[in-house]
Amino acid sequence: MSEITGSDLSLVDAYWRAANYLSAGQIYLLDNPLLAEPLTPAHIKPRLLGHWGTTPGLNFVYAHLNRVIKARSTNVLFVTGPGHGGPALLANTWLEGSYSEIYPDVQRDGHGMRRLFRQFSFPGGVPSHVAPEVPGSIHEGGELGYSLAHAFGAAFDNPDLLVACVIGDGEAETGPLAASWHGNKFLDPVRDGAVLPILHLNGYKIANPTILARIPHEELDALLRGNGYAPFYVEGDEPAAMHSRMAQVLDEVLDGIHRIKTSGRTGRPRWPMIVLRTPKGWTGPSEVDGVPVEGTWRAHQVPLAGVRDNPEHLELLESWLRSYRPEELFDEHGGPRPELLDLAPTGDLRMGSTPHANGGLLLRELRLPGVAPHAVEVTKHGTTNSEPTRALGRMLRDVVALNAEQENFRLFGPDETASNRLDAVYEKTGKQWQAEVLPVDEHLEHHGRVVEVLSEHLCQGFLEGYLLTGRHGLFNCYEAFTHIVDSMFNQHAKWLKVHRKLAWRRPVASLNYLLSSHVWRQDHNGFSHQDPGFIDHVMNKKAEVIRVYLPPDTNTLLSVADHCLRSRDYVNVIVAGKNLTPDWLGPEEAALHCARGAGTWDWAGTAEGEPDVVLACAGDAPTMEVLAAAALLREHLPELRVRVVNVVDLMRLQPDTEHPHGMSDREFDALFTPDKPVIFAYHGYPWLIHRLTYRRTNHSDIHVRGYKEEGTTTTPFDMLVLNDMDRYRLVIDVVDRVPGLGPRAAGLRQHMQDQRTRHHAYIREHGEDLPEIRDWAWPY
Amino acid sequence: MSEITGSDLSLVDAYWRAANYLSAGQIYLLDNPLLAEPLTPAHIKPRLLGHWGTTPGLNFVYAHLNRVIKARSTNVLFVTGPGHGGPALLANTWLEGSYSEIYPDVQRDGHGMRRLFRQFSFPGGVPSHVAPEVPGSIHEGGELGYSLAHAFGAAFDNPDLLVACVIGDGEAETGPLAASWHGNKFLDPVRDGAVLPILHLNGYKIANPTILARIPHEELDALLRGNGYAPFYVEGDEPAAMHSRMAQVLDEVLDGIHRIKTSGRTGRPRWPMIVLRTPKGWTGPSEVDGVPVEGTWRAHQVPLAGVRDNPEHLELLESWLRSYRPEELFDEHGGPRPELLDLAPTGDLRMGSTPHANGGLLLRELRLPGVAPHAVEVTKHGTTNSEPTRALGRMLRDVVALNAEQENFRLFGPDETASNRLDAVYEKTGKQWQAEVLPVDEHLEHHGRVVEVLSEHLCQGFLEGYLLTGRHGLFNCYEAFTHIVDSMFNQHAKWLKVHRKLAWRRPVASLNYLLSSHVWRQDHNGFSHQDPGFIDHVMNKKAEVIRVYLPPDTNTLLSVADHCLRSRDYVNVIVAGKNLTPDWLGPEEAALHCARGAGTWDWAGTAEGEPDVVLACAGDAPTMEVLAAAALLREHLPELRVRVVNVVDLMRLQPDTEHPHGMSDREFDALFTPDKPVIFAYHGYPWLIHRLTYRRTNHSDIHVRGYKEEGTTTTPFDMLVLNDMDRYRLVIDVVDRVPGLGPRAAGLRQHMQDQRTRHHAYIREHGEDLPEIRDWAWPY
Repeated sequence: MSEITGSDLSLVDAYWRAANYLSAGQIYLLDNPLLAEPLTPAHIKPRLLGHWGTTPGLNFVYAHLNRVIKARSTNVLFVTGPGHGGPALLANTWLEGSYSEIYPDVQRDGHGMRRLFRQFSFPGGVPSHVAPEVPGSIHEGGELGYSLAHAFGAAFDNPDLLVACVIGDGEAETGPLAASWHGNKFLDPVRDGAVLPILHLNGYKIANPTILARIPHEELDALLRGNGYAPFYVEGDEPAAMHSRMAQVLDEVLDGIHRIKTSGRTGRPRWPMIVLRTPKGWTGPSEVDGVPVEGTWRAHQVPLAGVRDNPEHLELLESWLRSYRPEELFDEHGGPRPELLDLAPTGDLRMGSTPHANGGLLLRELRLPGVAPHAVEVTKHGTTNSEPTRALGRMLRDVVALNAEQENFRLFGPDETASNRLDAVYEKTGKQWQAEVLPVDEHLEHHGRVVEVLSEHLCQGFLEGYLLTGRHGLFNCYEAFTHIVDSMFNQHAKWLKVHRKLAWRRPVASLNYLLSSHVWRQDHNGFSHQDPGFIDHVMNKKAEVIRVYLPPDTNTLLSVADHCLRSRDYVNVIVAGKNLTPDWLGPEEAALHCARGAGTWDWAGTAEGEPDVVLACAGDAPTMEVLAAAALLREHLPELRVRVVNVVDLMRLQPDTEHPHGMSDREFDALFTPDKPVIFAYHGYPWLIHRLTYRRTNHSDIHVRGYKEEGTTTTPFDMLVLNDMDRYRLVIDVVDRVPGLGPRAAGLRQHMQDQRTRHHAYIREHGEDLPEIRDWAWPY
Repeated sequence: MSEITGSDLSLVDAYWRAANYLSAGQIYLLDNPLLAEPLTPAHIKPRLLGHWGTTPGLNFVYAHLNRVIKARSTNVLFVTGPGHGGPALLANTWLEGSYSEIYPDVQRDGHGMRRLFRQFSFPGGVPSHVAPEVPGSIHEGGELGYSLAHAFGAAFDNPDLLVACVIGDGEAETGPLAASWHGNKFLDPVRDGAVLPILHLNGYKIANPTILARIPHEELDALLRGNGYAPFYVEGDEPAAMHSRMAQVLDEVLDGIHRIKTSGRTGRPRWPMIVLRTPKGWTGPSEVDGVPVEGTWRAHQVPLAGVRDNPEHLELLESWLRSYRPEELFDEHGGPRPELLDLAPTGDLRMGSTPHANGGLLLRELRLPGVAPHAVEVTKHGTTNSEPTRALGRMLRDVVALNAEQENFRLFGPDETASNRLDAVYEKTGKQWQAEVLPVDEHLEHHGRVVEVLSEHLCQGFLEGYLLTGRHGLFNCYEAFTHIVDSMFNQHAKWLKVHRKLAWRRPVASLNYLLSSHVWRQDHNGFSHQDPGFIDHVMNKKAEVIRVYLPPDTNTLLSVADHCLRSRDYVNVIVAGKNLTPDWLGPEEAALHCARGAGTWDWAGTAEGEPDVVLACAGDAPTMEVLAAAALLREHLPELRVRVVNVVDLMRLQPDTEHPHGMSDREFDALFTPDKPVIFAYHGYPWLIHRLTYRRTNHSDIHVRGYKEEGTTTTPFDMLVLNDMDRYRLVIDVVDRVPGLGPRAAGLRQHMQDQRTRHHAYIREHGEDLPEIRDWAWPY
């Protein structure tokens, strides 16, 4: 590259000063944005909200990246780990013009600057953190830990993209971030993009020093090299020297990345990274009220807190703001001087305008095989068995094959893809892996559609980054351990809620979870592996974002998965079994049933028309038990009119006022009756069904069975018995709740109790279920 | 130490073979435990469940630790990261005799061995993982990632304890584990114990190689040194050489730890650690059906899956089992030969008998100051303001001081202790920290009661380890980010559920959460920081373990905290505010109210006796709004009889059949009336109140307001308005729901709407709440 000149660096410095000025201005100023007159308390915001500490460092990185982007025309996506530094990103996108293009009422002039300042952290304005509202961002950074995983996710299958990821030294203490360094064991230097981690050591968190800033240089260096990187250090507090060093390092680093990307696969590359060590709150007030602020944790939020009431603070603020020499940076209209703008790239090369940060712009439809090729034939309901996720694996294999050229679909999993029986995908692709390979290994490839790492956090983070940059994917996970990413899910759902309201953000592919190896079939792994609560967790987020599906068999799973892979801007949770399960519905029936979301299975009950009791089910194990219970009732109480209702789309249970998929009360009453007992066998914790139905006419007659946190290492049927959801218990529930059954009911009740005892005894003696249960045969 | 002799090592080898034999026996054998006759299919379990892969490595470590424990009389707690390797711990505790002391029906003879084998993974038997049922354990290891954090938690304030922590290379990929290495930046070499991480590289997970096994030696070494350790390597597959190397390394390592512990504080020590690289499924079948098994992922669970039906597998199993030469290891009665037992320590030095793993045995009562010294005087309800968590901070300061000598209380937080206003504790203690200290730092100490690290996972993991080894503590956290540890909470609650049923496990101190900086006062940080769903999450666990408290003011918070710190075997979730809040109740009233858990505040309503409407509240912000709404109603509709009910203990709302704290229907009806409208302002997501009350007589008249996922960076009052929980909205709810209010109601409704508009306009113009709101004054 061309030599870095002094004028280059003074331009970078001016740009940096401008961004710092604009950042501080956002935190403090209600008015007088250009300091046209001396500051008075009336110019100051009544509530001072924002995080100054991290901001000058972010501005420093952004300005220097601008220089190299312009020089090299490199596509760069900027991931702001310290998302609290919202002012920095707002300042920079305003400076480069991308902000005003999206928000025309905030133009690049004095009027616009006033708005930019005023709206920040202001009611009805913009949030204090980097958020969906901020152009160029795919990452919030309010909850720390996920920046580097997002960066790797964004880089997959984007060979021409450089993802610059600023990691705060606070964030670096979190588990997910500590695990994310190993993303370089997956990233393919040839067909993926590059990730440039920039570890910003500003030394402090809210009230404490950070670990990585307080270990010796050799130790930090060893840690980063041990994580597989070649660190470059930019350390100091003197701006001119720092600019010179940063420019030089960035050129070296980008040259290094270029070499890696063009030299083919010559072993796993040691990717360069940058350690940027600066004072916290750099260039801000160095001392306030007699104590040091710049370079300490006191600079974390608002270094001068009493500006409105304390004339000394006000004066300090004014001299701080003037220290950036705004008159050199902004012209008489308040816009940035043209010579300043020379630093920034133009068009889509601006980091605030990169389409990668607005993935919907780049989203290409997934080519889907449809359900038909993988559906199982069903000539008679429930007479053949198949493994639902195995069929899904074949469907996903075809998704991989059909989209091989556009490379925009990936499957993520914590070492459970084969365990969840999706391994048919390995017929068409492999597991991406850049670390050492031994002859005994199978399915490892430099570039493959499957990413497996024993970290649910990384799976989720990679997938989020992949989706938000305009691709498609699925995260398959043991049901219980999906809770590990509860909080990441929260943040993604919050992101989507806001994203959906921003017209300029284009729809992205939904985040699809496949929860398998679920609570009812973790009998072998025991209590720690038994937890169906992720469904409850997602239910707290906005109805317009959340979908939950419980397909009971193979064809319904295929139909649901096909639907989810086509959907946009949702989080879809699919809970499905991997074990042999009766094929209840043929392909067309399944499609219709899934489209309806819930419906009567007349063939499984005793009669059409008004029933005496409704047996409802949601989930594969509950469906099996309900159908077995219905068969028992037909055998023992043939005169009892039993309706079987299966629910695939859990959201259907809610009122239509609560969820877009919700049923009207009329529909609900037609399905569940207004006044007959409903015995509902549900996959998860039973109270969710009560929560979803408590407003319904018939809710006091709805009796729910589900998992009530009783488990251990045992047999599948014993799990059902422990939680009172086995077929015999369901029959007893019917007997106990349907009035007027007469004397035969008592006999049946006893018979059912005897059956439970018989199973119990057999299981305790033989250590396995009775053959009739092991075969998952439907006795009808 | 004395020289290691060849006979020492052959004893270690024999012990190891015995443990391996017993482990494989557990996985496979229903009968014929000593191979007294040739194996037949009838001797084999029908379902082969268990994880062989990790087991021989665990047995290897356990045997070698036995040698050094005996030689040095060191107290060692064994933490089994690969908790799937349950057979190893069961085998070893049986061998050393600790198992039979706790479970007398499983004696150390042939009969007992048969039971040991049969019960494993058998219905009604013992789980396949290390679980509470296993003596010597504080760690389950079914959900991976927390072993090292537990180990550090156990070592705090246990200067004479060595915690040996085996970390699987699969587990090492998780975020929480990756962060846990930094526990050494906190551990005090003088007044804490030692942690010895043993990273077991057996190379594979379920279906994949592990990252750390597939990076070059120099890189791994750099990573571990970068994390601050001095690694020692024990690598190979030839038992004799491995025994010799392991014995030598263990001696070196223990000598090193001894030097560290006796040389005072001479800078942060570089603690030794061990890297143990062995084949996965070491000593098991090397090849099955023509493919390699030992040393590959295929050894993860059951290396021979078809033993019952496949004679070749059966033969392989028999020769595998006989390869351990059981006849040399067990005597004619089936017990371990006496010479074998020479290896193991005796009494409490046995790792299966250490009281540290049954913390209740060591638990010393916490000396508590009581509420009185920190209570605020209340002469008239709600006329003074105070910051609840600040008062709690003073109380915790006294807890620290009162227990300074016994050193059995710690406070954990992710850099939020000061932000949550508990900083009075720093008057009596500091933040423990062994990394570099600069002159500008405050409150950092080599040994302090506060542990702050920006990882909720570490806070939770440290605290769990601390509690399960018999101490007390509290985890303070921003409410929203407590979700980060959802899954860790699940596992701890599951542990407690089982622990409580085991008579030999003595009660431990409860896990106390203080969730502050909660949803209603994260107006400044914005949407990502606003999430009250942790309460919902905990509600899915067993009622006997879970307690949730929402103290509305300072004195109630003190009373609740005092109660929780005295409690045992629970998880207590306390949600409390840090901002100025009216002091509603005096100390005695608060104590009474908290003891009742829920009650009428007559002074806040309009009258005793039968009301026209009930205004209920749970949480500080809802209480403020309900009391303000009651005042507005008194002013505008003085004839309306309003009852105010405050709920501190959320569990009170449930039926007494569902939770030990639950109210009877009679109590509930007396409080909430059987038929009057109830307007319930609740801290969290509103549906939880419906879930808790849906069986109550009056549930269809309960109208709940709460957080409905509407937020951004704004003002506190705007948060209430956005979520329809502000005082004016509550008055409107009353007007809309109480019949027969007459013409004045319409006027009041309009007036309330006008008030909302007035606030909205003021907030949008001034960027802050109206002074009457900012002062949190109760207008009554």
